[in-house]
Amino acid sequence: MQAPDDTIAAIGTAPGTGGIAVVRVSGPRTMEIADRIVRCAAPRPSMRRTMSVIYGHIAAAAGDVDEVLVLVMKGPGSYTREDMIEIQGHGGRVMASAVLQTVLDAGARLAEPGEFTKRAFLNGRIDLTQAEAVADIVGARSRRAGRAALEQLEGSLSDAVNALYDRLMGIAADMEATLDFPEEDIPEALIQDVPDRISRAVSEMDLLISSWQEGRLLREGALIVISGRTNVGKSTLLNALLDTDRAIVSHIPGTTRDIIEEGLVLDGIPVRLVDTAGLRETSCEIESEGIRRTMRHIARADLQLHVLDSSQESGNEFDAQISGLDPIRTILVLNKTDLGVRICRDNLNGFTCVETSLLNRTGLEALKKEIRRALMQDIKMDAPPHAVISERHRQLLLKAREDALGADSLFGQDDIAMASSRLRESIEHVGLITGRVYQEDLLKAVFSKFCIGK
Amino acid sequence: MQAPDDTIAAIGTAPGTGGIAVVRVSGPRTMEIADRIVRCAAPRPSMRRTMSVIYGHIAAAAGDVDEVLVLVMKGPGSYTREDMIEIQGHGGRVMASAVLQTVLDAGARLAEPGEFTKRAFLNGRIDLTQAEAVADIVGARSRRAGRAALEQLEGSLSDAVNALYDRLMGIAADMEATLDFPEEDIPEALIQDVPDRISRAVSEMDLLISSWQEGRLLREGALIVISGRTNVGKSTLLNALLDTDRAIVSHIPGTTRDIIEEGLVLDGIPVRLVDTAGLRETSCEIESEGIRRTMRHIARADLQLHVLDSSQESGNEFDAQISGLDPIRTILVLNKTDLGVRICRDNLNGFTCVETSLLNRTGLEALKKEIRRALMQDIKMDAPPHAVISERHRQLLLKAREDALGADSLFGQDDIAMASSRLRESIEHVGLITGRVYQEDLLKAVFSKFCIGK
Repeated sequence: MQAPDDTIAAIGTAPGTGGIAVVRVSGPRTMEIADRIVRCAAPRPSMRRTMSVIYGHIAAAAGDVDEVLVLVMKGPGSYTREDMIEIQGHGGRVMASAVLQTVLDAGARLAEPGEFTKRAFLNGRIDLTQAEAVADIVGARSRRAGRAALEQLEGSLSDAVNALYDRLMGIAADMEATLDFPEEDIPEALIQDVPDRISRAVSEMDLLISSWQEGRLLREGALIVISGRTNVGKSTLLNALLDTDRAIVSHIPGTTRDIIEEGLVLDGIPVRLVDTAGLRETSCEIESEGIRRTMRHIARADLQLHVLDSSQESGNEFDAQISGLDPIRTILVLNKTDLGVRICRDNLNGFTCVETSLLNRTGLEALKKEIRRALMQDIKMDAPPHAVISERHRQLLLKAREDALGADSLFGQDDIAMASSRLRESIEHVGLITGRVYQEDLLKAVFSKFCIGK
Repeated sequence: MQAPDDTIAAIGTAPGTGGIAVVRVSGPRTMEIADRIVRCAAPRPSMRRTMSVIYGHIAAAAGDVDEVLVLVMKGPGSYTREDMIEIQGHGGRVMASAVLQTVLDAGARLAEPGEFTKRAFLNGRIDLTQAEAVADIVGARSRRAGRAALEQLEGSLSDAVNALYDRLMGIAADMEATLDFPEEDIPEALIQDVPDRISRAVSEMDLLISSWQEGRLLREGALIVISGRTNVGKSTLLNALLDTDRAIVSHIPGTTRDIIEEGLVLDGIPVRLVDTAGLRETSCEIESEGIRRTMRHIARADLQLHVLDSSQESGNEFDAQISGLDPIRTILVLNKTDLGVRICRDNLNGFTCVETSLLNRTGLEALKKEIRRALMQDIKMDAPPHAVISERHRQLLLKAREDALGADSLFGQDDIAMASSRLRESIEHVGLITGRVYQEDLLKAVFSKFCIGK
């Protein structure tokens, strides 16, 4: 594989006003560019030791652009394994853009999204699951999600996938070794336990595949839909749930606002709460559209909070409401207990029920406990670092699993040549997870999700 | 002055999603905190040389928080003159918050806005005008504004103000020296040229005060109001002016959007364009309110673009429109030349006029040239680095000027004791500019405008 031969640059920090902005540069011409644009005391940047910081100015033809710190990181001991500098200037987009423009004028080109991390991959410092972990860390919506991504960056998923890859390769190699022998002389020892070995590999795949739901909840967050008839307290419930958690996270001013706006975080699981239009028969076209949307949300929800007015007696109309709900994915919120409890709980068998009075703010903690319990079913809360896969990994593992089972079946029919060929396909799918094998469009799909400057 | 004895920390980069986030730490316990939370190869952070970069992990009780680079900068060779570290982690607010929380848990407290720069001031590394320049650089809305602020950070304004301070001190000292002599023995040589010396000082003040308008335009941008009757093309003009410049600045994707949204930049001057409600007699209450707002905007505008329909013949109603305009601050835009020019330009004597056809997009460049010319009257475009003052500096200089003139007058009445006392007041006002003398509420006012982490 050929190393990239050009030098890339981008602003690495978030847009907007901050005290510090960082422009990253990577590639073979980095040190030459640094010597040209960094005005500092001797020695010049290219003569500095790696992992050192220079105080100086970025100088352009029109005069000084900014007062900066420059981090010098020489390859291969850098993020990309190439020569790199990071120019830390005063924050603010105008100044950061001016520094970036000076770097571009000196011979770098603007980096594509994720291109620094792509180079770390192409130069063999990290594999594809580790590259994906970088994007997951940046996008993490809770500390637990960040920690899972950090474990993936440290190699938890790479290790599991590489072990699987090696296991499958061993089986394929042994099968292929027998192909050189005439049928009557095949060394049985090599292949007698192939079915067991494939079965163990498939078990490992199943274990990884089963972590997908946990990964999805961590990455995308859980979707919780609040449903119920009009006027039972749905919007009040939404605000009450958001409010209690807002108080918890807001003690660091200015740092967590963007998280709160996305919902709340329960035990490390980011949660997106959706209030829905009240469910009732209607002839109003606009309201009907709202109800259609509600139904779509409910179909995708990880959990449904269905709010009932506990002060109303249950009737036929009430039974109709309940009959459409999935007891496993639904918590019934019996609200308005301050008006008395007339609801008949016999009809609610099989459902988790929580009584609340949102008016008096009672029952909220009990409700949150039940929400946590429902969401955590798929999550190994106290497990040691373990691999958690993404949708891309899951698709590849499902194909690899199908191929492995196919190989097993062919082996059972004594067609070892076809079986090993099918196993090779399984191996290739596993290899695509870590990027042992890859094509340009795979890289494009992975890195297009990155921000510029990473 | 006592050095701060606690250790502060904050996220220094802008909020939002970016590839890199930086947590800054400054104060006497910085190295102790670094040793506790940074897991890295030996030697530990406190044993590293200053201006070096460590690769490592931030470790908390619950496990690793992030993979990071740590910049070690030991006092006094740091931004604050105190021991500092900067922890550069993966971007994203969750991860940055987690790193910050780890630092706070280890004994730092959250920094107030501008507190790092305040420490640089309190520890004597920069004066108050240089501290203010830091905020101006971060908030710069054009490269020219950033360059002016950088010059101020490098000391252009400090030098001018310090020279003024020294000049006034010399005069006061000479005057006060004479107070020890009996009236008949006063050494005339000391004070004979006091009026000339005060006059030179006042000239220097006037020169600085005259730079205020340039500073205001650079910092706040120019306000240009588009006015005119309904249907003459005001909104089209707004869009046309915004569009042409949008094309110029948008070649670096994602980097300059926040600037464009605020208007356009003409020769380094940020410009805020305001479209106004068409001016006409009306009985509609809502429209009347719009017109009142228009009048308020016009009163504050640096420049008014008044649009006329050039295809209409002028009449009385037309003269009434023109008579209310200030020829110095107004450009008349004679639009719709594609429909023919029937307007009589005799009535427009004294006004700068530009013919346009916004439909055909002609005349726009000529108009922009005239806008530039009008705005640049107050700006020394090709001048070498020079001091550009802010409103705070202006207020202090006006007081210092008044006191100096008062001292001059008292000196003329031979009341040297009162004259020198009055001159001391002038000196104190000058000293407040650079912070030679200051009170806590002055610092509060200056640093409250900063962002957190700077």
